[in-house]
Amino acid sequence: MSTAAIRVTVWNEGVHEKTDPRIAAVYPDGIHGAIAAGLREKLPADSLIRTATLDDDEHGLTAEVLAQTDVLLWWGHLAHDRVDDAVVARVRDRVLAGMGLIVLHSGHFSKIFVSLMGTTCSLKWRNEGERELVWTLNPTHPIARGIESPVVIEKQEMYGEFFDIPTPDELVFMSSFAGGEVFRSGVTFRRGNGKIFYLSPGDESYPVYYQEQIRQILGNAVVWALPERPDAGLPVVTNPRRGWFENTD
Amino acid sequence: MSTAAIRVTVWNEGVHEKTDPRIAAVYPDGIHGAIAAGLREKLPADSLIRTATLDDDEHGLTAEVLAQTDVLLWWGHLAHDRVDDAVVARVRDRVLAGMGLIVLHSGHFSKIFVSLMGTTCSLKWRNEGERELVWTLNPTHPIARGIESPVVIEKQEMYGEFFDIPTPDELVFMSSFAGGEVFRSGVTFRRGNGKIFYLSPGDESYPVYYQEQIRQILGNAVVWALPERPDAGLPVVTNPRRGWFENTD
Amino acid sequence: MSTAAIRVTVWNEGVHEKTDPRIAAVYPDGIHGAIAAGLREKLPADSLIRTATLDDDEHGLTAEVLAQTDVLLWWGHLAHDRVDDAVVARVRDRVLAGMGLIVLHSGHFSKIFVSLMGTTCSLKWRNEGERELVWTLNPTHPIARGIESPVVIEKQEMYGEFFDIPTPDELVFMSSFAGGEVFRSGVTFRRGNGKIFYLSPGDESYPVYYQEQIRQILGNAVVWALPERPDAGLPVVTNPRRGWFENTD
Amino acid sequence: MSTAAIRVTVWNEGVHEKTDPRIAAVYPDGIHGAIAAGLREKLPADSLIRTATLDDDEHGLTAEVLAQTDVLLWWGHLAHDRVDDAVVARVRDRVLAGMGLIVLHSGHFSKIFVSLMGTTCSLKWRNEGERELVWTLNPTHPIARGIESPVVIEKQEMYGEFFDIPTPDELVFMSSFAGGEVFRSGVTFRRGNGKIFYLSPGDESYPVYYQEQIRQILGNAVVWALPERPDAGLPVVTNPRRGWFENTD
Repeated sequence: MSTAAIRVTVWNEGVHEKTDPRIAAVYPDGIHGAIAAGLREKLPADSLIRTATLDDDEHGLTAEVLAQTDVLLWWGHLAHDRVDDAVVARVRDRVLAGMGLIVLHSGHFSKIFVSLMGTTCSLKWRNEGERELVWTLNPTHPIARGIESPVVIEKQEMYGEFFDIPTPDELVFMSSFAGGEVFRSGVTFRRGNGKIFYLSPGDESYPVYYQEQIRQILGNAVVWALPERPDAGLPVVTNPRRGWFENTD
Repeated sequence: MSTAAIRVTVWNEGVHEKTDPRIAAVYPDGIHGAIAAGLREKLPADSLIRTATLDDDEHGLTAEVLAQTDVLLWWGHLAHDRVDDAVVARVRDRVLAGMGLIVLHSGHFSKIFVSLMGTTCSLKWRNEGERELVWTLNPTHPIARGIESPVVIEKQEMYGEFFDIPTPDELVFMSSFAGGEVFRSGVTFRRGNGKIFYLSPGDESYPVYYQEQIRQILGNAVVWALPERPDAGLPVVTNPRRGWFENTD
Repeated sequence: MSTAAIRVTVWNEGVHEKTDPRIAAVYPDGIHGAIAAGLREKLPADSLIRTATLDDDEHGLTAEVLAQTDVLLWWGHLAHDRVDDAVVARVRDRVLAGMGLIVLHSGHFSKIFVSLMGTTCSLKWRNEGERELVWTLNPTHPIARGIESPVVIEKQEMYGEFFDIPTPDELVFMSSFAGGEVFRSGVTFRRGNGKIFYLSPGDESYPVYYQEQIRQILGNAVVWALPERPDAGLPVVTNPRRGWFENTD
Repeated sequence: MSTAAIRVTVWNEGVHEKTDPRIAAVYPDGIHGAIAAGLREKLPADSLIRTATLDDDEHGLTAEVLAQTDVLLWWGHLAHDRVDDAVVARVRDRVLAGMGLIVLHSGHFSKIFVSLMGTTCSLKWRNEGERELVWTLNPTHPIARGIESPVVIEKQEMYGEFFDIPTPDELVFMSSFAGGEVFRSGVTFRRGNGKIFYLSPGDESYPVYYQEQIRQILGNAVVWALPERPDAGLPVVTNPRRGWFENTD
């Protein structure tokens, strides 16, 4: 119901596109460029959509940028260990304070995701360009709004269970692969004041982020992940000296 | 249905009992001693129940001890930051591999709990020895078996919401305090192959761990937290080269 | 993100206000009148808010009215058994097809709520006008947006656990009462394509529905409960003759 | 930890085996016979395992039988509408009072399951004898103990999402089919004092109930579903006249 413009930052390590011409051929503007272009199609016209990459100063995620970000999208793959721990801590504090976070595909092994989950976040995988079907398991979820079931991805890396994550708050999408595996491909988590969505479809080798339905999912997810308490800080440890009702006198 | 003996390790930092005669008067055998005594009442006679404290070598949590522990209980309060990170990592690996973990009261701020939750784990508190009522919200849960509702704790430190934890897998107990606050006082989490139970009743200043019903809850929780896959290691990242059914040929 | 006007129907049995002057003094325009007035304060100006009561033809819930209702609020107390089963079936079909449903206070024993829950929906109660504190347990939930924690209700009927409902999808609010009881006072459920919210604060004897914060919760809940798939019918049983990918040829 | 014998009743409508020689050839002792034989392999030797069918007096589910049943298994397919409503109500009361219930395959459309779920319980299906893979999503769950992932069922009826059930309490198994569909094939629900498990593998046309791993799942499920409160009746509506702590004087 709000009229405030949505402020999104799309983060991508941006390494593979620079080192492998085959990847660059799929994503000439970078994976972040393709994701940002999709969000420009799906979000209101006054949304502020910027990108940031590993090579930027402070990876492009300065305190100032984060303070002006409602929802952060995260894509990483080859360079998780090159992300500075101080930046990870800063992002994590912002998520717990209310910033939305959308973690994509191989970002399951990113420092930020692993630190917020508390598990190994490991999974099975196989990259042979096989068919993925993304089924909607929760038709009442705003992230599934306008999404057909299944969404068909013709060629994709297989991600399979067991996916070592905490029990999700909500299981929105479940994928099957031509090889027979299944995967919880769209799941939500609440951490502190922040909402987190993990979406597995999307890979550096396949043009998944150009698909209309994947773009719709990401647009829906940004709106869903908007902070509910824009002015709230972290949950504060307090030590009231008297019972609740006495304190109010 | 198993006949294997249950192997439990009760860990306590064991600091306050040594430094404050008032605490020592409540727990002359240490908090770990009182908890272990309670488990000896409630678990089968062939259970192996040992204790470990901060001052022991490697805090008493060597690889050998952990390998022989089915369920670990954790109590800490003043000395969270004195727990060695290497020991915390070792415990965490064991939990994800299947060891049960029961975190008690002020252990909400322990390194092991915070690292497995991914949130701040902060809460409200007030120590004025007020009445706590522990209500059962899930009568089907094995941890609530034989537990009256409410359990009455005459004098207790108040812990109040907002308790900054991930959404629990199961909400077993909910407490109210004389001051009007509420608290999710008995909650479960699944992480990797391991089951985790957090129980807030219990404090160094009050004789809570001598109460029969609290002892029953802890005994129930140990049985519930037993590993389901005693021989399983951590979930393994695998990279099958072919589809599932082709791999089976 | 939609611009369509929100269409709300507030249903109230409307019996007690007519038969007891003390109730009529609290709610001279009926409980439905007070709830509708609150929604007019909190929802966009172009929202369509109507009311319906037991004495209306078909209880005011004709197929036509339901077809034009995005979210239905339900208040009942003395006359649950006088609600026609055919109307209940009609409402239930609409909820499963996507209409939002907000069940209030003593509506926990309404036919529509019990049939959607599958449990007895029983609870403890005591009506002595005691203080209720409504604590927010999920600060990321849109229904809790702008809500202080706790919301204080000076005089209220006590509702206490055990509340015999299925495990809620989300636990948004938890109440404590002056008498020491706790209650899951704000909970969500997904059923079919529909979203359901139960809110316990609100009673015929106390002016709860005039409180600004309760009105805010109800306004938030209506927006949250809007159908995500306005054109969807009930989930359809289908019998595809071939595998998914063959059917698409 | 209990030594009481487990009392199980396996209910099967038992119609198709009598009317179709092809079904009788697969299950010469009836589907109930095959299930009971599997439980005799997997449960302790002193377990009491009986069967009941539609044609028995009161469908074999008299008040006396139910009073002596800890866990009831339910298989139905062609004759859901021939099950007497009074028997369904009796079973439902027993489940809410604590009896475990395991609903199998086409039992998703049984009166007892639909009434406990509150939804349509519809799904997609196709009977072409295709391969089903049953993946474990929750390795900590006692029902998954000793179960390989995936369990392979060579020929099976396809059941596919969207499966119109409430959000399960726990998602233990997820299946994929050769045709590409996915299905929540092993899910738990808590209703009142009772635990419910739904398992979709198993069909009248295929010898699924002879598979060792399916028998292991059913044995595990019976142990899991045992009542935690053997002496408890239904949750009772109570109306305490004073606050909790005053009532205890």
